Amino acid sequence: MSHGKQFTLFTHAGGPNGWKVAFTLAELGLEYVPKYLDFGKQEQKGPEYTKYNPNGRIPTLIDHANNDFTIWESNAIMTYLVEKYDTEHKISASNLDDKMQQLQWLFFQASGQGPYFGQAVWFSKFHPEKVPSAVERYQKEAIRVLGVLESVLAKQEWLVGGKCTIADLSFITWNQAAFGYILKDHPDFNLQKDYPAVNRWHNALVSRKAVAEQLAYKDSLM
Amino acid sequence: MSHGKQFTLFTHAGGPNGWKVAFTLAELGLEYVPKYLDFGKQEQKGPEYTKYNPNGRIPTLIDHANNDFTIWESNAIMTYLVEKYDTEHKISASNLDDKMQQLQWLFFQASGQGPYFGQAVWFSKFHPEKVPSAVERYQKEAIRVLGVLESVLAKQEWLVGGKCTIADLSFITWNQAAFGYILKDHPDFNLQKDYPAVNRWHNALVSRKAVAEQLAYKDSLM
Repeated sequence: MSHGKQFTLFTHAGGPNGWKVAFTLAELGLEYVPKYLDFGKQEQKGPEYTKYNPNGRIPTLIDHANNDFTIWESNAIMTYLVEKYDTEHKISASNLDDKMQQLQWLFFQASGQGPYFGQAVWFSKFHPEKVPSAVERYQKEAIRVLGVLESVLAKQEWLVGGKCTIADLSFITWNQAAFGYILKDHPDFNLQKDYPAVNRWHNALVSRKAVAEQLAYKDSLM
Repeated sequence: MSHGKQFTLFTHAGGPNGWKVAFTLAELGLEYVPKYLDFGKQEQKGPEYTKYNPNGRIPTLIDHANNDFTIWESNAIMTYLVEKYDTEHKISASNLDDKMQQLQWLFFQASGQGPYFGQAVWFSKFHPEKVPSAVERYQKEAIRVLGVLESVLAKQEWLVGGKCTIADLSFITWNQAAFGYILKDHPDFNLQKDYPAVNRWHNALVSRKAVAEQLAYKDSLM
């Protein structure tokens, strides 16, 4: 992989989790070559990839400036990037207590938002039989998670430390899936009316230059 | 909460995630008072608790020696405890690269093991209708996750840095749920025969003095 850029990012053009890392790299002005895996060919399960990531999922990052250090799990990658390269704390907390609350929100995203929003998509689109009670379960959970965020963001602009951090950035793509698909036509969900703080926060996030550029690039790949 | 111990841990006697924090506190010899919430009374959703944790789930830790610093999400709590109090790195990685791989495994636990094993329990026990295809989906995912762990633990004793860390400890309770319930009678799952490295690792974890004592105490509460 002698492509001259500092990082290689194994990712997927459509999946939500790889773009979280792309946002972080772009925010920090770090150069990388993306390798888009073909899920149709199950490239993420093949030995050429699982030698880097035994979980067989995207994303995985290789840092060629750190002896080809390899790390997977999107929120661990984001944390690695800011711990090592965000020395000015442009998008990361700086003291231990704030760093740990940044981590708390990253775990809430990884355990509370991602998997449940993902199950909502699964049972709506991919499950081999129709199970309305399962779709309802995960739509309700998505609404609950957005309610947790609303309760916090109604009182503060960002999740941690009074500024945008990787904790905020980690929620963007799955929230896009919620607003654009999972809860789009749900009768009990009105983003503008009932979740004004989440709406303001999400719009501020997707309007950031680095994020907007990555999202435009993502659209160009579809 | 002037109980004289350093920490208050809001937790649940039966749930898997609070015990991960209990193991960590016990391993580090830190003193705490557990507050077991009554889920039957929905105490985890009441204002007396959500003022500490807006997510309304357990666990939450308060560190009275650090200005009542409050943190939730079990794996963030575990990381906080070792970052602040495991200065000798008894159960934690010491250099940045190892710390980030410790975090990678914590995110795999939080996003890959916990939620999916939890959905297997949900659809087996609590879902309002029988959905065999959903049970099968999550049992299969549990088997896949254990296969990822087997592929790594067949080549090394512990997940990170050649010693037991919080990354390993984080998997104990949900793996107990898999072996004792989710996959107990599954025809395609044989722990001893097909997952010898996971079996060896899990037995080593539950045999640790601090862990064994906490598990015995947990059993005494049931």
